[in-house]
Amino acid sequence: MKKVTIQPPATVANLVCGFDILGLALDEPYDTMEIRLLDEPGVIITSKDGFPLPKDPAQNTAGAPLIAMLEELGQPIGFEVIISKHIKPGSGIGSSAASAAGAIVGANHLLGSPFKKDDLVRFALFGEKVASGVKHADNVAPCIYGGITLIRSIFPLDIIAIPAPRLHVTVVHPQIEVRTSDARQILRKQVLLKDAIRQWGNIAGLVAGFIKQDYDLIGRSLEDVIIEPIRSILIPGFDEVKTKCRAAGALGGGISGSGPSVFMLSKDEATARSVETIMQEIYTRIGLDHHTYVTTVNSTGVKIIA
Amino acid sequence: MKKVTIQPPATVANLVCGFDILGLALDEPYDTMEIRLLDEPGVIITSKDGFPLPKDPAQNTAGAPLIAMLEELGQPIGFEVIISKHIKPGSGIGSSAASAAGAIVGANHLLGSPFKKDDLVRFALFGEKVASGVKHADNVAPCIYGGITLIRSIFPLDIIAIPAPRLHVTVVHPQIEVRTSDARQILRKQVLLKDAIRQWGNIAGLVAGFIKQDYDLIGRSLEDVIIEPIRSILIPGFDEVKTKCRAAGALGGGISGSGPSVFMLSKDEATARSVETIMQEIYTRIGLDHHTYVTTVNSTGVKIIA
Repeated sequence: MKKVTIQPPATVANLVCGFDILGLALDEPYDTMEIRLLDEPGVIITSKDGFPLPKDPAQNTAGAPLIAMLEELGQPIGFEVIISKHIKPGSGIGSSAASAAGAIVGANHLLGSPFKKDDLVRFALFGEKVASGVKHADNVAPCIYGGITLIRSIFPLDIIAIPAPRLHVTVVHPQIEVRTSDARQILRKQVLLKDAIRQWGNIAGLVAGFIKQDYDLIGRSLEDVIIEPIRSILIPGFDEVKTKCRAAGALGGGISGSGPSVFMLSKDEATARSVETIMQEIYTRIGLDHHTYVTTVNSTGVKIIA
Repeated sequence: MKKVTIQPPATVANLVCGFDILGLALDEPYDTMEIRLLDEPGVIITSKDGFPLPKDPAQNTAGAPLIAMLEELGQPIGFEVIISKHIKPGSGIGSSAASAAGAIVGANHLLGSPFKKDDLVRFALFGEKVASGVKHADNVAPCIYGGITLIRSIFPLDIIAIPAPRLHVTVVHPQIEVRTSDARQILRKQVLLKDAIRQWGNIAGLVAGFIKQDYDLIGRSLEDVIIEPIRSILIPGFDEVKTKCRAAGALGGGISGSGPSVFMLSKDEATARSVETIMQEIYTRIGLDHHTYVTTVNSTGVKIIA
């Protein structure tokens, strides 16, 4: 039986000012998945570690992309997916995207790579649709491409790799659940033009800062006047984390995806570790269970390891 | 008497999707100005060619920036400004910005350059305030810096030079007047979040396209779903110009500043000249007097020539 083991990484979507258009892949944490090629039609989902995943493949974030891929292929084959989940669902670091991207990259590999990365993102979006009701690509694109990706447009899909200097990422996941669909629902449908102008100045600055390797500009541009003021209310300790981590030397940061995880970018690892200590102190004092990660940007995306 | 002759260039603000934050300087047209250092306080404005400029320096786009500079200097000196206007006021290619930037760059030169470019932009903004009621920097910044500039933020002022590949610019100025203040008034104060997301995807794509020298990405990103649909109504023939120029090979383009001028970017001069012919044919058929320019991006900003 043909099978492959793969590791899809966690991802940070939005990157503060780039709501729905920017994301980056992390080196850690990552899921481990085994994909098996079956000689009869269908998709089977198996959870290896007791995470309560939907068994109906059409309702599963790994299954829905595979169904879409199989429909396009039109061949009498199928896949079994065995998932070892390390990226906790609802953490805000792209858990559903990792399942979707991992399954689709693994399946493509087993078939001899007939599809390009753009196609893989297009299939993986069916997983995001199942998870949150919206086909947003700012997790699946960096998960598949690696590095920092810009999604200029979803329809038609237009993904651009954004080169960047070395960045260290500290993530804290306070153990409360913020559902992506809830975090979307509280957003206003209209925004002030003057706020939108400030936001697109920051997005332009952030992209320029990444490509020009200008850490200072990256830091100045990590400002969100539209989404963060609303969503941060759902995250206990958010303002304190942001203020103290910046004071400790972080370039900046904010809500990872729709939260509750909060991420900070730093120029060097020592700063990223100080930032971790600050995050731990704050959530210990508040009395919230939490996990932290100190990691870097994953430049390759989903890893095929066997 | 100390005096200097300078040539401030025309500029294209907004660059389609970058409302209020992006602008570029043109090689042509440009104004010619003579700035004279006076040993008594005050600012004198002299028009050399009969353009009806406000003589009260506080109400003049060249005078107001000089008054602001003199106040900050606190010395008993003054300036005379003799203006030869070639960039027609109300054309949408930064006529007021050229007067403001030219005066302030010339005055700074006469004083031995005590001020940095950021300061010069800050002073020049007083001219834009006189001209349109709003301190927008997307003309004065490229006029002073040259090239393509990003104004990440106005308060505090944060200007970033955006490197770009060689670009040819075709501009048509249909001879109707669109006042900047009117063009601002018709804009809506609120925009849909989904439109803002599409816009910031394009802005990020445009900045990435410029820095990565990716002409194709530049072309795809030259799309404005917020300002253009409203303002283009003020410009006869706009949709036809855009469609036909793109079909002729232009990367894209749109309203220059608040109009009525329309600009198109092309990869090579031959295309830029074909685009000019198309523009001329359309406005000749409509029966509107018009000027056209085929030029390139001015990389140095205001020129000091004597």
